[in-house]
Amino acid sequence: MTRPELGVCYYPEHWPEDLWADDARRMAEAGLNWVRIGEFAWTRMEPEPGKLDFGWLDRAIDTLGQAGLKVVLGTPTATPPRWMLERHPDMLAHDRQGRPRGFGSRRHYCFSHEGYREECRRIATLLGERYGRNEHVHAWQIDNEYGCHDTAISYSPAALRAFRDWLARKYQSPQALNRAWGNVFWSMDYDSFDQIGLPNLTVTEPNPAHVMDFRRFSSDQVAAFNRVQVDALRPLTDRPLLHNYMGTGPTHTDFDHFDVGADLDIATWDSYPLGFLVDRVSDRDEAFRLDFARQGDPDFQAFHHDLYRAVGRGRWWIIEQQPGPVNWAPWNPAPLPGMVRLWTWEAIAHGAEAVCYFRWRQAPFAQEQQHAGLLRPDSADAPALAEARTVAEEIAQLGEVRPALGHAALLFDYQAAWAIETQPQGSDFSYWTLTLAAYSALRRAGLSVDILHPSEDLSNHAMVLAPGLVFMDDALKARLAAHEGPVIVGPRAASRTPDFAIPVPLPPALPGLDAQVARLESLMPGLDLPLEGGGHVHRWLEEIEGDAERVIETTDGRPVLMRAGGLHYLAGWPDVAGWDRVVDHGAAEAGLETLALPEGLRFRDTETHRFAFNYAPRPVQWDGQVIQAAGVAWWEKPSV
Amino acid sequence: MTRPELGVCYYPEHWPEDLWADDARRMAEAGLNWVRIGEFAWTRMEPEPGKLDFGWLDRAIDTLGQAGLKVVLGTPTATPPRWMLERHPDMLAHDRQGRPRGFGSRRHYCFSHEGYREECRRIATLLGERYGRNEHVHAWQIDNEYGCHDTAISYSPAALRAFRDWLARKYQSPQALNRAWGNVFWSMDYDSFDQIGLPNLTVTEPNPAHVMDFRRFSSDQVAAFNRVQVDALRPLTDRPLLHNYMGTGPTHTDFDHFDVGADLDIATWDSYPLGFLVDRVSDRDEAFRLDFARQGDPDFQAFHHDLYRAVGRGRWWIIEQQPGPVNWAPWNPAPLPGMVRLWTWEAIAHGAEAVCYFRWRQAPFAQEQQHAGLLRPDSADAPALAEARTVAEEIAQLGEVRPALGHAALLFDYQAAWAIETQPQGSDFSYWTLTLAAYSALRRAGLSVDILHPSEDLSNHAMVLAPGLVFMDDALKARLAAHEGPVIVGPRAASRTPDFAIPVPLPPALPGLDAQVARLESLMPGLDLPLEGGGHVHRWLEEIEGDAERVIETTDGRPVLMRAGGLHYLAGWPDVAGWDRVVDHGAAEAGLETLALPEGLRFRDTETHRFAFNYAPRPVQWDGQVIQAAGVAWWEKPSV
Amino acid sequence: MTRPELGVCYYPEHWPEDLWADDARRMAEAGLNWVRIGEFAWTRMEPEPGKLDFGWLDRAIDTLGQAGLKVVLGTPTATPPRWMLERHPDMLAHDRQGRPRGFGSRRHYCFSHEGYREECRRIATLLGERYGRNEHVHAWQIDNEYGCHDTAISYSPAALRAFRDWLARKYQSPQALNRAWGNVFWSMDYDSFDQIGLPNLTVTEPNPAHVMDFRRFSSDQVAAFNRVQVDALRPLTDRPLLHNYMGTGPTHTDFDHFDVGADLDIATWDSYPLGFLVDRVSDRDEAFRLDFARQGDPDFQAFHHDLYRAVGRGRWWIIEQQPGPVNWAPWNPAPLPGMVRLWTWEAIAHGAEAVCYFRWRQAPFAQEQQHAGLLRPDSADAPALAEARTVAEEIAQLGEVRPALGHAALLFDYQAAWAIETQPQGSDFSYWTLTLAAYSALRRAGLSVDILHPSEDLSNHAMVLAPGLVFMDDALKARLAAHEGPVIVGPRAASRTPDFAIPVPLPPALPGLDAQVARLESLMPGLDLPLEGGGHVHRWLEEIEGDAERVIETTDGRPVLMRAGGLHYLAGWPDVAGWDRVVDHGAAEAGLETLALPEGLRFRDTETHRFAFNYAPRPVQWDGQVIQAAGVAWWEKPSV
Ligand SMILES: [Zn+2]
Ligand SMILES: [Zn+2]
Ligand SMILES: [Zn+2]
Repeated sequence: MTRPELGVCYYPEHWPEDLWADDARRMAEAGLNWVRIGEFAWTRMEPEPGKLDFGWLDRAIDTLGQAGLKVVLGTPTATPPRWMLERHPDMLAHDRQGRPRGFGSRRHYCFSHEGYREECRRIATLLGERYGRNEHVHAWQIDNEYGCHDTAISYSPAALRAFRDWLARKYQSPQALNRAWGNVFWSMDYDSFDQIGLPNLTVTEPNPAHVMDFRRFSSDQVAAFNRVQVDALRPLTDRPLLHNYMGTGPTHTDFDHFDVGADLDIATWDSYPLGFLVDRVSDRDEAFRLDFARQGDPDFQAFHHDLYRAVGRGRWWIIEQQPGPVNWAPWNPAPLPGMVRLWTWEAIAHGAEAVCYFRWRQAPFAQEQQHAGLLRPDSADAPALAEARTVAEEIAQLGEVRPALGHAALLFDYQAAWAIETQPQGSDFSYWTLTLAAYSALRRAGLSVDILHPSEDLSNHAMVLAPGLVFMDDALKARLAAHEGPVIVGPRAASRTPDFAIPVPLPPALPGLDAQVARLESLMPGLDLPLEGGGHVHRWLEEIEGDAERVIETTDGRPVLMRAGGLHYLAGWPDVAGWDRVVDHGAAEAGLETLALPEGLRFRDTETHRFAFNYAPRPVQWDGQVIQAAGVAWWEKPSV
Repeated sequence: MTRPELGVCYYPEHWPEDLWADDARRMAEAGLNWVRIGEFAWTRMEPEPGKLDFGWLDRAIDTLGQAGLKVVLGTPTATPPRWMLERHPDMLAHDRQGRPRGFGSRRHYCFSHEGYREECRRIATLLGERYGRNEHVHAWQIDNEYGCHDTAISYSPAALRAFRDWLARKYQSPQALNRAWGNVFWSMDYDSFDQIGLPNLTVTEPNPAHVMDFRRFSSDQVAAFNRVQVDALRPLTDRPLLHNYMGTGPTHTDFDHFDVGADLDIATWDSYPLGFLVDRVSDRDEAFRLDFARQGDPDFQAFHHDLYRAVGRGRWWIIEQQPGPVNWAPWNPAPLPGMVRLWTWEAIAHGAEAVCYFRWRQAPFAQEQQHAGLLRPDSADAPALAEARTVAEEIAQLGEVRPALGHAALLFDYQAAWAIETQPQGSDFSYWTLTLAAYSALRRAGLSVDILHPSEDLSNHAMVLAPGLVFMDDALKARLAAHEGPVIVGPRAASRTPDFAIPVPLPPALPGLDAQVARLESLMPGLDLPLEGGGHVHRWLEEIEGDAERVIETTDGRPVLMRAGGLHYLAGWPDVAGWDRVVDHGAAEAGLETLALPEGLRFRDTETHRFAFNYAPRPVQWDGQVIQAAGVAWWEKPSV
Repeated sequence: MTRPELGVCYYPEHWPEDLWADDARRMAEAGLNWVRIGEFAWTRMEPEPGKLDFGWLDRAIDTLGQAGLKVVLGTPTATPPRWMLERHPDMLAHDRQGRPRGFGSRRHYCFSHEGYREECRRIATLLGERYGRNEHVHAWQIDNEYGCHDTAISYSPAALRAFRDWLARKYQSPQALNRAWGNVFWSMDYDSFDQIGLPNLTVTEPNPAHVMDFRRFSSDQVAAFNRVQVDALRPLTDRPLLHNYMGTGPTHTDFDHFDVGADLDIATWDSYPLGFLVDRVSDRDEAFRLDFARQGDPDFQAFHHDLYRAVGRGRWWIIEQQPGPVNWAPWNPAPLPGMVRLWTWEAIAHGAEAVCYFRWRQAPFAQEQQHAGLLRPDSADAPALAEARTVAEEIAQLGEVRPALGHAALLFDYQAAWAIETQPQGSDFSYWTLTLAAYSALRRAGLSVDILHPSEDLSNHAMVLAPGLVFMDDALKARLAAHEGPVIVGPRAASRTPDFAIPVPLPPALPGLDAQVARLESLMPGLDLPLEGGGHVHRWLEEIEGDAERVIETTDGRPVLMRAGGLHYLAGWPDVAGWDRVVDHGAAEAGLETLALPEGLRFRDTETHRFAFNYAPRPVQWDGQVIQAAGVAWWEKPSV
């Protein structure tokens, strides 16, 4: 890995051409290395069908490149021009109510529409042919924020046709599908694939197996859509291909980011800590939200950094970093002074190759006119620019930052998220929220974490956590059972077969662990069960049968954490104090030292350094050192 | 009446045929007498249109019967096969938004669709011909849970056609309808019945008279739909016909259960105390809900037992009894140990001929895979099976249980529920919630209650309560005025004419009672008025003019309970303490002894015994005896 | 101005003709002068297309006139008959979901439908021809409550056609529109006006410039619709034309009331203080709502009086005054005794020429059967009648009431409301709520206020407040800067160009005031910033650059109120205590004495008197005098 770099998103088409050179100069002067352009500019590239205009783009790339900036060029397929709808009137996605989702903003296409896919192949090819070997174009972004605005799932006629084909390929016969789904249950059998509908607008809930297949199908369509452009660009360029994921969180799990990532070279994500605190962090109370309103959740960003490092198989960026108030959350406060620097350094400490700010100059017009940039609309410096400059200088002093292996591994599987959304059983059960709760407990203990897909090698991590892994095959179970250090799985582990049925023998059926979910219950807010020794279980508790050793119990004697050797089963959803106990137990078994960090303080270790981030809105002390609100500190890593 | 019996719901079509005999044996061994089958199995009975397959059903009935079980056979009309839609593409109900409610779950039909009615007649006739005289088939269930999933009301083209016909039959001329509805109000007059629409999607609220007629029509369509199958089966069997009502509560009042019951022999209902506590009991606070989260509301079930005893004209069952956590409520906790026994005994004490558990083995697939059964998915005993077995043994010891006449009568009228839903006037005014509040007060006082349709003979009851009876004709008023003991009517008594107008003279216009509602007000939460002597009025208060004797007043002198002889008018909605005072007053006049039962304890008297049920999650004391949490006790009834 | 008068709304078509004379006699006896009729009676005027029946109306007018009453005759265009839809099946408005809003209540038309406009011209002409010179018809009401039930905005095909035409007239070319809207932003450019859709059902939010133009268009359509009837009636009558606005509040800003008012002679509004407290006053907490549940917000009505005095260019009425509980709010309590008198006098003190109660006799049928009148459904006096009679007697004693110039001016602009609804940036930012907060602070200080359109002459007012004025042109800025007394503008002042872009130089760019909004933030509930010296800023705070004098700051040194000479900029949203400080400061500069009125007490000065209104539910003291709950007092105005 080379030294971390900074960058910015830029829209030359929004500004008079005579501003470009000065903008480029100021970017370079501030210490930025990268500039992303082009991803919404289809009408400028192709004002009329087939009438291409790349002259402006040639000049923009040249101007930026001459200033020493490396260009990320985006394909503009998230914003098909209005004329595209004249050619493909049926290309729109449909919402859950069955209505077309119309023109007038962005992402107005259905991933299943073959005609639009062909148009995307065409424009990507044209761009690849023109710029694939351009000396200034150092990377390519495909499309923009797949799935954002709930667009990964479409109930359109195009999606219906494709879903039937997908099912036919998977099941080969309606009878096989009927058996797999258990359609006998309410006489829901189909005689032909053409009778199968999308699982919206049914009288009461549809068969969860039906929904689960539709979720898998929808995710596959995103990956297939993306692959069309990958396939078009690969022969035309040697530069890395990336996509900018709009994070994951509880609401953006609609396609498998690992699947899309498998076809790409770098995973990048769009990090908006303040907006996400309001609309994606659902597990914390009002006081917490207010305390962190100008800093963001202390673990949300870090979780995503670790996740996308896995999605990118080690290579990842932030390609859009919030630089100030945004326009899209219910409320949009300004970050505390220092937070832009803090967010940037947190990403770098997690191994980001680059952190790019969104955007250069705040646009005074259209949808995002209240979205801050590094420049104000009047071209004056916005506060974030100084913080970016500071980071650039600090990087220059610090040099390379090599990510270290995390102390613990946390497994993450998008299919588990779909399964739980399909069948929450308790209204507040969210897979992502559960995994963030586990992750936060690891962070509160001062540990650095690697997030891994379940298929990854786990042998390098002293401790493995795998909450909520609904689907576990025998091979995965065996690998976990064979792991050297402590492994903690559950709740809901291995609770469904691939066909979305309850397996028999009952879950989790882990090798060597005598514990079986005899019954389970979801618990409304307030129906908590205290744990012997501190903490509570809330939201979810399974009744376990079996003689596995009990590590943590409720005060009325129900097992919550059980073990056989290093393999543990967690039978409920602990609260914050409960999670701390689970992590403390696992860390002790793993021989990992845990810390009692003050509220808001977080650590991340690199190969050489320990970085400390104070998310609290007040100074904290650590080891005799005061770290200011929004402060970042680093020191040589203690030898273990 | 014979001794009470137990039973279970079973789906032979869900399991390999080689399991059936052992299942049947285990049912019988556990002390179960009844087994309900068939109600969702249309695709197994008729896999293709006209191609019938009853062989498996013959064998299933025979296997169950051979084990000593009596079969309730269901008609499968709640789950029309997918091929039915090829024959009747317009058979679907439409929702309030006008959208068809599609295939993929159940109850996907409009009650008004003539073609589908004909199909139901056909399948019921086929079943009746084959099994009407079968020695093992001892009862018939028609369809399943009419109205569940909001299906009693449909806004389909079929419903529109039928509604216009219904109106034409009722009013004979558009002019008569215009007069009855008061269409002059906003120039809403119709020139022809073909101009009349369904009362959805109007600009602002439609004429309440329009809505009320649509509600009556919709209820009539359910009764007519049911009658088709009754008429088909009657000539073919001598066994009793029943339907399984999905309870009533605040949300399942969309058709008149008495009307449907009039064509049947037994009323049965589906009792899910924990799910219903969450989604149907709206009058109690969070602390109450949490205290009873694993037991259910102490009065909700009893209310329904008494209601369906009336609907069944004395003959009633629970045909689906919750045996553990269910899958459909927002949260699904597990019952306290003992609650399945308690619920069963409460039903028996109220005169249930049978209590059947839903279901035998938990299905590992499809929509209800998280719905507990008497067996787990792996065929091991679930906790409820032991409790059912205990009840069977206790029944064997106790012998017959003959219901006694209740101390008090409570009148219940589905039309009143529709009237108040049509015109709540205060957002939290629910007819059912009001009647449950009255019922609960009677239960807290230790009284046993009979729920009666207003048309029933009231002369056997020392005290009559009739809250919220919007429609009262002169004959009913006269009968109530002539009643020997105390009668308490109101609020909202007799407040609308049959045409849904305010009557003049103003309500309640009760014979001999000088009290008139001069004005009324609905009260937002917090705007309570204290009562002189304790308790409050909330939600609703009428300003009364007239010289009737004031029994209870607000502290600022507004009359709340007034009387003339035994006839009382209640002018507001009392809170819990207020209702206790109303009941105490009535009971004192009636010469009924009231008790001060501890929180959660409830009594029900049979001819010979007093049964005690402890719904509290902690032991209670009564008369020197400790009754455990979820405990049931009975002793010889004190002679009065 | 002559002495204030009272009146009532009456529906002769609802009652037997033999009641009319007695009704008229009772009206006159009670001291009423005006009676409004006819506005919903289209089917009685024209039972079949072209078949007119005015005989009953002739007789009704005559009967009322003979009793000494002056008639306001309404055109019935808010309630097109059912047969109208046979002639114009496409005349219905469509909701945001794209669904037609059907027949069965009222206001079922789209303002853009040319065919329906023509029908309105026809019926208005017929009425004008027949009654334009009738001696008893002293005023005309056009239509009823434009925009009520969200009807000002329609997404119908008729609206779409008209919107495209409107855009074509405004922009002349799609290219000009693309530039103005900034459609380059997400490749949203149009090649033709026929490609432009309505801004509903887009994938994510549409371009705010698109929305803003649609809002302007929608408002223009209302004004144009109204003008059709004005143009029809003007040649036929010399009597004043009026419309009854359903108030403004936060929810009824969908068209520019000033624009419609410009074509009329008198502005009237419909005042329902108790219903509006529940559904329109969003800025106050639960305790406040309960305290004022039976009186209404102490400033809501007064604000509207002052607003419609401006809309009517000095001439205004209340044409519908709540006389008791209404039927349409979520809860409908009864007013405290005395409130009907208080509300009436408050209107008179603000210069109302007439106050008419809605309605005479409570209708026992149809949608509003629970809406109180001056008579009960049984024709007995309802409580409000006595209060109206009292006011009539008091007017007789007091004689003329001449409104005085207010101490302060508050500017109000409907376009600002649309702008903020288009782009709230914080979920609880409502233009109207902000202006009411400013207005209330003025009232709490004992000041009388004039509300003015920004285009009005401001030179007569010592102090001018202009919160939230999103659009300010250079001329307005210059006028404000030149004003003699203190002028307080902001927050969000001049924050958008007419094309809905952020202006550069950055706002507010006020002449001579060195203050610039460098950045802004919206603040979730709880994220308040305390002000040095008392009060808080909440909801909204702008970061100001510039050297203008700081008058009020946050405790951490952020400027909130700045000034240069008399021109002030307010950079945030103060809470109640903060607004008091802003007003105190301005008043001090203006040389206005402020008072510390007790909670609930309000003053309004006329030319000769000071009126005092006690909205509190308890007595208050002022200057040694006790004013009872719901009490009104007046005394000679102190000389200044
Ligand atoms: Zn362990
Ligand atoms: Zn009494
Ligand atoms: Zn000043």
